[in-house]
Amino acid sequence: MEQKSANDIFKEFKSHSISEFFKRNSQMLGYAGRVRSLTTVVHEYVTNSLDACEEAGILPEIFVEIKEVEESKHLVTVRDNGPGIPSQFIGKALASILSGTKFHRYLQQRGQQGIGASGCTLFAQITTGKGVHVVSRTSSESFECDVAIDVNKNEPIITNFKNIEGNGFTGLEIIGLFGETKYENSERGVLEYLKRTALVNPHANITLKDPDGKEHVFVRTSNILPERPKESKPHPLGITTSDLMYLAELSSSRYISTFLVESLSRVTKQKIDELKNLIPDIDLEKSPHELTWEEGEKIVRALKKIKWMAPETDTLSLIGKEQIEKAISAILMPEFVSTTQRRPRVYMGGIPFVVEAAIAYGGKAGKEREEFRGGEILRFANKVPLLFDSANCAITEAVKSIDWSRYGIKNFDEEPVSVLVNISSVYVPYSGVGKQAVAEEEEIIDEIKLAVMECARDLQRYLNGVKRRSVQESKYKTIMRYVNQLSDDLSAITRVSKDEIKEKLISILKEHYSGLFEEETNETKDN
Amino acid sequence: MEQKSANDIFKEFKSHSISEFFKRNSQMLGYAGRVRSLTTVVHEYVTNSLDACEEAGILPEIFVEIKEVEESKHLVTVRDNGPGIPSQFIGKALASILSGTKFHRYLQQRGQQGIGASGCTLFAQITTGKGVHVVSRTSSESFECDVAIDVNKNEPIITNFKNIEGNGFTGLEIIGLFGETKYENSERGVLEYLKRTALVNPHANITLKDPDGKEHVFVRTSNILPERPKESKPHPLGITTSDLMYLAELSSSRYISTFLVESLSRVTKQKIDELKNLIPDIDLEKSPHELTWEEGEKIVRALKKIKWMAPETDTLSLIGKEQIEKAISAILMPEFVSTTQRRPRVYMGGIPFVVEAAIAYGGKAGKEREEFRGGEILRFANKVPLLFDSANCAITEAVKSIDWSRYGIKNFDEEPVSVLVNISSVYVPYSGVGKQAVAEEEEIIDEIKLAVMECARDLQRYLNGVKRRSVQESKYKTIMRYVNQLSDDLSAITRVSKDEIKEKLISILKEHYSGLFEEETNETKDN
Repeated sequence: MEQKSANDIFKEFKSHSISEFFKRNSQMLGYAGRVRSLTTVVHEYVTNSLDACEEAGILPEIFVEIKEVEESKHLVTVRDNGPGIPSQFIGKALASILSGTKFHRYLQQRGQQGIGASGCTLFAQITTGKGVHVVSRTSSESFECDVAIDVNKNEPIITNFKNIEGNGFTGLEIIGLFGETKYENSERGVLEYLKRTALVNPHANITLKDPDGKEHVFVRTSNILPERPKESKPHPLGITTSDLMYLAELSSSRYISTFLVESLSRVTKQKIDELKNLIPDIDLEKSPHELTWEEGEKIVRALKKIKWMAPETDTLSLIGKEQIEKAISAILMPEFVSTTQRRPRVYMGGIPFVVEAAIAYGGKAGKEREEFRGGEILRFANKVPLLFDSANCAITEAVKSIDWSRYGIKNFDEEPVSVLVNISSVYVPYSGVGKQAVAEEEEIIDEIKLAVMECARDLQRYLNGVKRRSVQESKYKTIMRYVNQLSDDLSAITRVSKDEIKEKLISILKEHYSGLFEEETNETKDN
Repeated sequence: MEQKSANDIFKEFKSHSISEFFKRNSQMLGYAGRVRSLTTVVHEYVTNSLDACEEAGILPEIFVEIKEVEESKHLVTVRDNGPGIPSQFIGKALASILSGTKFHRYLQQRGQQGIGASGCTLFAQITTGKGVHVVSRTSSESFECDVAIDVNKNEPIITNFKNIEGNGFTGLEIIGLFGETKYENSERGVLEYLKRTALVNPHANITLKDPDGKEHVFVRTSNILPERPKESKPHPLGITTSDLMYLAELSSSRYISTFLVESLSRVTKQKIDELKNLIPDIDLEKSPHELTWEEGEKIVRALKKIKWMAPETDTLSLIGKEQIEKAISAILMPEFVSTTQRRPRVYMGGIPFVVEAAIAYGGKAGKEREEFRGGEILRFANKVPLLFDSANCAITEAVKSIDWSRYGIKNFDEEPVSVLVNISSVYVPYSGVGKQAVAEEEEIIDEIKLAVMECARDLQRYLNGVKRRSVQESKYKTIMRYVNQLSDDLSAITRVSKDEIKEKLISILKEHYSGLFEEETNETKDN
């Protein structure tokens, strides 16, 4: 066997750009399979449009068009009425992975990585050799251009830049040609994705023109923009030493004590005094830049021993209990629906999150199977539908771990039941770059379970009622059979009319079994 | 509602480093949950050690030590006898994400991203505030130093660098303190990971010293280094236009025709002539740098119409049929084992891959459940055990999609059966950065299914045999009851001794039911 030295081997050493990495591993961004790839493109653009409109305070109007250019090749257009993107940033926003306005802010938004739109450009390039075309109208300029990525440098290449006439509106339009794609009317297709998006974003008008030219319009059912979430600060109960050290490094506060008040939520001067009593050996009146890791660790541990107010809720934007109920009733037309909105919790990292959940039963609830409707889980994170990678998701894990038989559901997979879960957080811990599954953090799984079980208890009461009624109904039928027979026989013996006897028998029964005849009195005449 | 313009919003625009991204999303690298985090650290270092030893032509000796320093905090040491890392590269190799010797080479190795070791350094920093310590001995230098990542720049910070005395050997030792970790003797723990690693790497000596100080030694069972895989070229049958354009851009060939011969495998001058006949309008005698995307697309399409030899097999390093059987027999001690090694296939991207599979039944096969042993899937990619994210993996998908009842397994989850699958490829399409699951590419799933079904047919024959034997056995017992009774009765009537009659009856039966008495003749005396 030939021996190779370290110097021989390391002749091959190179550094690579994040674009090179994702060019080679585009499946990690969600570009795996033709149907999924097309849905991913639409998902990335629509998500950005919704975020941009909401941040600008505009009611979203989103138009999506998909044309089949040749087999497996689709021209996708996504147009919104958002604030547009300034020309200075258009290149980096659409063609430089890990650039954006969202990654570094402690603010709940759908996008949080600065990967999505540039990922689309990369996918267009990989499959058709071309980047995307964009038309942007901001309040101060209007222009169009082509944008592509210089993959080796992860830098944008802008060509055919042209200023255009303003039309009095702002907005962004992106047109891209994507290969290795397929339009399909399935559970994982674009239409279903937009349907679910509309479900939880009632303030948006969304139109899809599909490859057959058919228009699907999801009309806005609310003219009120959701309350804009506030930028927030980490909660002291969940912050890690690493976070604290990072914040201390960035801080311009003079003392550690003031730094803590300014950088964390719910920290007051009184709380600082409590903290000082817990860790008297640490000098909180020195500069945060002098904080050592060991001191940071001690502070974090001490923070956990103090009682804190729960995190602020105005940092999160929820769908809302009423809205969920309205949307589910409209779309699934279930016999029964129960919804809940839990109080904010904190998970590792001091990050507040809120779980909303709903259970719908009967009607069009559940997934259509061959012979019946079976249990279905509708997963959302920050109001974005998650259609893929369901298996390794905290939401799936939580719903599957529930003992459904306790709630009157013998087999979840075989009953007409839909469970909706939405997690809202400044930072959702996705398990992959493609953001299709929530990492299985224990605190999150537990909270989802509690939320779903809350709804499940309502469902159980409903199902018990149904069962009780059906038991009563069968009792009623049995009794009526005897009443009929008895009336016949008594009538034959006493020669009193059958109807008279029957009427009396029923009135005797009514006294003893009140409620039994209330709804069914009409039926008695037919028997 | 306050309105915000694009210029307001884009004041927040920033670019971020890949280190910042993974610092925030360390769960995507496999750092989710304490047990998994510790296994991930060991996995990354051991994988690199095996790759380095094999590339240098050295039989691997790997020593892993885990010490619990305080609750949830472990000091991990991994030491190997590999070629070491030159001081010039030590920083980037251990503290710059997306740097390495592997990403850009068309060569089968365990690592393929240049993320693993730097990910460990990042995780150490996030959880303990410190990077890692390294001792490296190459054939030309020996030194030690501390390495950390400048997260904002994704660049290494080297401190305490010190040249040390050589000891006549080469090797690398990394020592790191990792918080948020837990040592557990479970299916997902370090010990199980190393056990499975040893299972498919019989040429490696692996020692684990666990937190209790107990040493677990997996002794090498083969002194032969696996044949080193050759660097290969993409196969024309699977190459994408994007790949072709990329190769053309890099090419220094004078003509497209010679470029194709030089850059793709199996392309000869004769094949170029065939290609020219298929696309007469494209000039293959111009420079590859002049190739347009449209021409590239046509070439790729034409390449698919030509008959090609299968990809070379010497570019892949397999476990080997015999080795799998030996290892499984030693560790699972099953009643039955069947293994198969399929021929190389190509999947999207012209990338050859080979599937090896085995089924073991009985003994310690299957996973231990409460009351019985149930079906278990042992997943490997390039001889690396995959312990996590099993749900969304091509291997799981393939095994679960098999109709096991056709092979005598009524319920896979309730039978003592282990299915082992190893995928070898120059490029394994992992579904996530943490490389714990293979993306569900159809060509790969199909091939795995075929491999497993091949073994399953053997299993079926075996189980049929078992069944036949058990049916025969019960027939035998029934007959023997009658033989006993009949001998008694006949003896009473004829006064011939019972034993004599019985002997004769048995010899009559033997003539008619040969095989039935072969193994059981001893038993007849007892009956």
